[in-house]
This record gives sequence, structure tokens and C-alpha cells, in this order.
Amino acid sequence: MGDDTEAIAQSHAPLFEAVRKHLEREAISFHTPGHKYGRGIDRELLDILGDRAFRADLTELPNLDNLHAPEGAIHEAQDLLARAYGADRSWFLVNGSTCGIEALVMAVCNPGDRILVARNCHKSAIAGVILSGAIPAYIEPEFDEALGFAGGVSVNSVRSALDRYPDARGVLLVSPTYFGACSDLEAIADLAHARNIPLLVDEAWGAHLAFHHELPDSAIASGADGVVQSTHKMLAGMTQASVLHVRGNRIDCDRLSNALQLLQSTSPNYLLMMSLDVARRQMALHGGRLLEKAIALADDTRKRSNAIAGISCPSVERADTSGSHDFDRTRLIVDVEGLGRSGFAVDDWLDERFGVLSEMATPSHLVFLVTIGSSQDDCDRLVEAFTVLSQECAKQSVSNSVEQLQVLRWPPLPPARMHPREALFARQRSLSLDEARGETCAEIVAPYPPGIPILVPGEVVTSEAIAYLQSVTRHLDGESWQTLKVVAHG
Amino acid sequence: MGDDTEAIAQSHAPLFEAVRKHLEREAISFHTPGHKYGRGIDRELLDILGDRAFRADLTELPNLDNLHAPEGAIHEAQDLLARAYGADRSWFLVNGSTCGIEALVMAVCNPGDRILVARNCHKSAIAGVILSGAIPAYIEPEFDEALGFAGGVSVNSVRSALDRYPDARGVLLVSPTYFGACSDLEAIADLAHARNIPLLVDEAWGAHLAFHHELPDSAIASGADGVVQSTHKMLAGMTQASVLHVRGNRIDCDRLSNALQLLQSTSPNYLLMMSLDVARRQMALHGGRLLEKAIALADDTRKRSNAIAGISCPSVERADTSGSHDFDRTRLIVDVEGLGRSGFAVDDWLDERFGVLSEMATPSHLVFLVTIGSSQDDCDRLVEAFTVLSQECAKQSVSNSVEQLQVLRWPPLPPARMHPREALFARQRSLSLDEARGETCAEIVAPYPPGIPILVPGEVVTSEAIAYLQSVTRHLDGESWQTLKVVAHG
Repeated sequence: MGDDTEAIAQSHAPLFEAVRKHLEREAISFHTPGHKYGRGIDRELLDILGDRAFRADLTELPNLDNLHAPEGAIHEAQDLLARAYGADRSWFLVNGSTCGIEALVMAVCNPGDRILVARNCHKSAIAGVILSGAIPAYIEPEFDEALGFAGGVSVNSVRSALDRYPDARGVLLVSPTYFGACSDLEAIADLAHARNIPLLVDEAWGAHLAFHHELPDSAIASGADGVVQSTHKMLAGMTQASVLHVRGNRIDCDRLSNALQLLQSTSPNYLLMMSLDVARRQMALHGGRLLEKAIALADDTRKRSNAIAGISCPSVERADTSGSHDFDRTRLIVDVEGLGRSGFAVDDWLDERFGVLSEMATPSHLVFLVTIGSSQDDCDRLVEAFTVLSQECAKQSVSNSVEQLQVLRWPPLPPARMHPREALFARQRSLSLDEARGETCAEIVAPYPPGIPILVPGEVVTSEAIAYLQSVTRHLDGESWQTLKVVAHG
Repeated sequence: MGDDTEAIAQSHAPLFEAVRKHLEREAISFHTPGHKYGRGIDRELLDILGDRAFRADLTELPNLDNLHAPEGAIHEAQDLLARAYGADRSWFLVNGSTCGIEALVMAVCNPGDRILVARNCHKSAIAGVILSGAIPAYIEPEFDEALGFAGGVSVNSVRSALDRYPDARGVLLVSPTYFGACSDLEAIADLAHARNIPLLVDEAWGAHLAFHHELPDSAIASGADGVVQSTHKMLAGMTQASVLHVRGNRIDCDRLSNALQLLQSTSPNYLLMMSLDVARRQMALHGGRLLEKAIALADDTRKRSNAIAGISCPSVERADTSGSHDFDRTRLIVDVEGLGRSGFAVDDWLDERFGVLSEMATPSHLVFLVTIGSSQDDCDRLVEAFTVLSQECAKQSVSNSVEQLQVLRWPPLPPARMHPREALFARQRSLSLDEARGETCAEIVAPYPPGIPILVPGEVVTSEAIAYLQSVTRHLDGESWQTLKVVAHG
């Protein structure tokens, strides 16, 4: 197909168009949803969300197809999605990237099969292991001093793991990471394919990569076999709307579809699906231009922030340190140690004083997402905030303001006593962190941010893990880890 | 707590109020979602959905709590939800009732545990069996001639199943059914509790029952231990938004929460959650009045439809026939056999000629949902359509118009050769329906409507099941069953 023909095809959004056409009909609803085009919705909620969102809150009506057995508008929309990303087949996900990662593991692993999993994976990778009954072996990411956190996974680590576990049925990595660090997926895909096993990539943070040459290569372009993307994170999907791509024949698409049917509602929300369809069209038609602007904004903000005393942004050109082959330059990573304040304290200050909300704070860093929705005004405000903060910090004597900083260097990989699925279903009891020492963990312990597993069901609760969780509990607002579920004896 | 105090409490919608407060802040977003309060959204999509829906498409920001570790607004909202329904604890679900039913099965069953499942369950019950590794034993519902379909499950059938499987860890039923038929949950709960096992109820079609005395008793009020409701089906939730309730101590709530975390996105959509919060407030405050109107509308429409030649509506007072203890009178069931046309043909006619969309058609019946969002005009239009259709049918000679009608009397329960989880993960191949005869099914075969399993992984593909699927393929637009996945030999 020629480029022009493809551009014309991509200018369509079949599901969106089908919904729009349905809305022109003014049909009379005796079907779900119960609110009947918004008529049953509470007035205050209508005021906040608008009535149009409810008019378009539809279900599997004539011409609106069926996510679980697509033959019409959803089928066409998913086909355009696959073509836009260079995949052979793509799926809309209404249960987030979580269900996509789980389904990939279930498609690739039978109960008892080995899978290699990067330890800086999202907890959904462990969930996939539990649901499938697979046995994980972990690949440890490299520690990136500039991020104060994990970078990518090195090619050598993957090679060693493959040598050690020749029975592995697949390799599952996260790239980019929460911090925008990308592993060398092309080299890793070659290693996996040399053993005829698939490379699965959690590309939740990289749905935009395919559409601009200055961004890291996308997982699909790098040769990955199964890829999950959170369209809602870096592009214009609604929250919880993600996609899944498959390329090549190392993944059984029937098995994958079956797994997705287990993991997704039979009443999928059409707003979520429509937003996926339109987000794909938007990127296929205007992605280059929109990302050009986002990259320029991020680069400019990084440069201006770097010029402020106490603020330092790790270079996005420091590739191939610590397993990171490349960095997503739309991710603005800011090291605030030079201000003598923790990332958490700076985060609170930005919120309270300037109404600026970051994506995540660590003890030493902050992460800001610059996307196609970001504006020059947003970035100016951030730079202004840093400027004021820098001046405030400079006035305070260091001895008063320096807090106990620490790096999120996670504990050594705990030994495993049971497989994750066994431990999750074992009889359990709750213990205080200190009492749990030496016991077998029975839950996924993944403090957020960034939601990376510190303990997995079946692993020994080590002193180092306890110390880490105690430290996290002191620092994070959200979750606290006072107790742990462990496998009960006898 | 007094009624007045409770009414004041229920007049709050904590999550909705937290979102509204956040929107007043006009914060600057460097977090997900990437569209940044809608600024990155395609213009055409904004025209259809409105910009407010995107402004409220938020994430785990300060004061907006975290669905997976609720301590603030979501915790309070779920607490009010539990109190409104008479539960001890309730959960918002953003992955539909599907994930709630699956989580209940995972909470109650370890791999290899027996569970009694009504065979007219939704396919998510089978999904729960597969994910948990439980072993199902089925309770067959009674056939209701007036519905041309399954009614409820009789108390005697449950008693027999409990006697036959004394090792069962729980009983899982659907009530009301798609057709509004309710089983005698109080008697069944007593049977289950006498063995100290929980009664789990898929009450997807009954989120409204608790709020009007003329409706069947709700599952929680009848003594059920774990109950899932699709707030989007009969109340004012957005599609895919459901809730889960637990009462008593026969279900381990920690295990249930753990299972829900495996089965739901870590990026839950706030529109869905807000709609659950406001739908609960709406029912707690105004449920009686709103349902009074819906019941009157349904009763009136039933009466007027019944007076039309060829149209007949089964009585909602025919309790205790065929396992059905009670009927939801807001469900308008219409038998069109007297018109000499199939339910499918009438469904198409209503759509094309009057723009009236039913919930579901069967060979002989149609199902219409009358909810708190329905209006007198909607119902008048339906009655008008029936009147015109009746006149048209009367003019046609019967020999020309009578189609081959058949009843959806499903095939006898096929014998099982493998457990569902084993069969799902076994090596598979695709065969034509005829070739599949005698093989072991490897997929959930649940033609929609109504999505009830005809074959479950591990069951023998019987001649009767094949005949049923061939008939369904001829009649239904959506899915067709040309091939089946079966377990490969050797």
C-alpha cells in the first residue's frame, strides 16, 4: 500500500465514526447502560462531566461491534492501530496495560514454564506470573547513579539469564522505565530470537516513541514480539485505555485473545475505546509535528532548569551507561539534591506554592512528563517555580534545611522458597514487618511510586527488604507497610 | 447511627467532591494522563464527548486517593456504598462485574477446590474457575417455558448439589438472570451457611433491588456473603463500572482485595469511579422515588403491550415456577411468538422502523430494560411500535410470515474430561464444528446473548452442543461458531 493510500486510511477512526453516526440517530434505549444517554444521571455529576460524555456511553449496539469478537468498527480500528505501529495485530485494552502484560505472560507460559522477568517490572508482570502459574527468574536492572534509580537492563544480563535458564519460554522487560530509560531492545530481541522465544516489552511509557525519529526506537521497531502501551500515559487516551501489539509468529494470538477475554470486562466502556481510536488517528496523521513541539518544550525546559542553582537534569545523551541504551527526552528528570531538600519536599512545595503537579518524586529526584498536551505556559511556570525555590533554598543555611537524603537503591534479590502462584494461594497470616523477617512473603509488595516489586509471593522476607519498606513508609504519603502477609506454617 | 445521621452521611459523595475540589484548583499537570485536562485531545473527539469529561479524567493526585490502597476519598466512598447496601465492606470495580466474580472465586477457592456454579452463569464465573484453578460442579437452572429460557435455580437443585459435593467451598449463582428471574436466595443461603460455606451471587442485573420494596429482595438482604453488581446496567454508573459487596466473615477480604489487585488496572479511570460514587448517593437519597417511577412505567407498558394482538408479556407474579422465586418487574419481557415472527426479526424491525433498541432478542422473546433513566415518551414509543407491528403482522398471511421458531433450550450438560484450567493451558488446535465432535473443548463457548456457557474448557464437544451452536450461528448477527478450539492429542 502506498503512503498516500495509507494516510487516507489512517485519517479514519472507524469506531469513533460509528459512535458519531449512532448519536445522530437519536435512538430510544431499552438497553444498558441504565442512565439512558445521561437522562438518569445526577445533576451535579452532569455539571462536572457534561452530558455529552453520557450520550456517548454506549454498549454493543448495531454497528458498534463487540470488543471480544470484533468484526466491524472495532476490528477496523484495531487494524489501523496495528498498521500505524508496524505491528501485525493489535488490541484495544480497557483494563489498562495491566491486563495486556498479564495476557502476554498467559499466552507465552503454561503453568510451570519459566519466564525471564526484569526485576524493575511493574507488578502486573508478577500478576501475570501468578495467573499463569509460570515460574519467574529475574534479570536485575543496572543502577543508574544519575537517576538515583534503576536504569535499563543490560544486554549482558539478559544473555547470562538466557544461558542460565535455557528452558525460558520468554523474556519480559520494561522499556522505557518510569524514568525514560530504554534498554537495547534490538540486541535483546536478537538474543531471544536466537533461542526462538519471544521478547515481551512493557512499553507502558512509550506509546509515543514510534512517531518521532529523535525518540528511542519503539519496541516493535526493535523486533519485540509482544508490546503493551498505555495510550493514556504519554498520548491522548483516557485513563485506563491501553493497547497491545504483536509482531511475528512467536506469540499465539488465539491464546492471547483468550487470555484477554478472561481479564477484561464484557461491558467495555466506549469512551475508553473511542479515545484509543482517535489517539491512533491523531498520531498517525500529526504525530511528528505534535511530538516535535513536545520534544522542543522538554529540551528547552531541561536547559533552563539546568541553569538554576541547585537544580540538575541528567543528560539525555548519556546512553549506554548502566544498561540504558537510550532515553526518552520528553521525560524531564530533575535532580534536586543540590537544593538540600528531598524530592518529596520539593514535590509538596511545587504543589502548594505553584500548583505544579509532578508525575513522581523519589528521595532525590522528580519526574515530569511533557506530552503533546503540554504548553509553553506550563513549562514557564515550572521554571519560574524552580527559580523561586532555588532562591529560597539559597537563603536558608544548609545545616537547617538539609534533610536525610537517601537513594532508592533497592534490596538484593531475596531468595525464593515457593513459586508465586503457590504462595499466593497458600494459607496466610499477617505479621508486623519485624515479625515477618525470615518468613515467606505471600503478597506482591510494590510500593508506589514506582510500583516495582520489592517482594514477590514465595520470596523470603529479608532484613534488607524490611529496612527498605520501613524507609519507604517514612517517606511516602500513600501506602505504608506496617504489616506483611506471609505464608502460614503447617 | 440514626436514620437522619445516615441520610446526612449518604448525601455526600466523597470521591466526586474530591474531584470537584481538585478541578477548582486549576493545577498544572506534568503527570498522566498525557492529554493534560483535554488540551491534547483531538478536536472532533472533544466535540462529541465535551471537554469536561477530559478535565475530570484524573489520576492518583493528592486528595484523590488510590483505588488499590484506599485511605481517603475512595475509602470513604466505598464505606458509604457498603452502608447503603447493608454490606460490611464494598469495593468499586473499574473492570466490570467480570473482575468481581473472578475475584470472589479466587478468594474462596484454592487450586483444586470444588465450587458449585449455576450453569446459567455468566462466562466470568468460568473465567474465575480457570484463574483460580478451582474445579466446578454445575447446578442446572430450571427451564421456564414462559421465558423460553432458563429461570432461576431451585432450592432442591442446590441441596442435591451440596449433598453430592460435600467438599464444595462455595456456591455461585446468578440472580436476577438476564430475564429478571430471581432464585430463592434466602433458602439457598441457609443451605450454604449450614455447611459454613459462602453464597456468592452475580447480581449484575440487580444493583437497584435494595432500594424498593416491590422489587425482589437483594442478595445481601437475603443473606448472600459475596455479591457483584453492575451499577452501569440498572443504575446510573458508566459502562464497565461495577461494585462488589461482602457481608459476614465467610469470605477472606484480604484475599479478595489481593485478587482484585491482580484483575484491575493500576490506572483506574476516575470517571468510572466518580459515577459509582454519585450513583450510590442518588439511590441512597432518592432511590425509592426514582424506582417507584420506573416500576410504574414498566407495569404500565407491560399492561398496554399485553393488550396488543400477538404480544404477550409473562406475568411477573408467577413466582416459584421453574426455580424462579421472584421476578424483577422493571424488566419488560415480551413474547412475540403470537406475531408469527421471531424475536430477532422483531428486534430488527423495531430498530429500523421506530429507532427502538432492545436489550436482547431470543428466537421467541425480547428483553427491554426500564430504568431510572427511562421516560414515558420512550415507553409510549415502544407501545406505538408494537401496535403498528401487530397490525402489519395481522395483514400478512401466516404462511408467508411464520418463521422457523425455536426455543433456546440449551443442550444437556456435556461430560468433562479435564479441569477447565488444564484444558485452557493444554496444546490446542482449531477444528470445524463437525470435526470437533467428541473432542475436548479448550475455550469458553458462550454465545451472546446471553453469554451463558454452552461448552467450558475440558468438556466433551457433544452432538447436542454442536447442533445448538449451529442454530445460534444461523440466528445471531454477532458471533458465529464455525470453528472450535479443542485440546490437541498427544
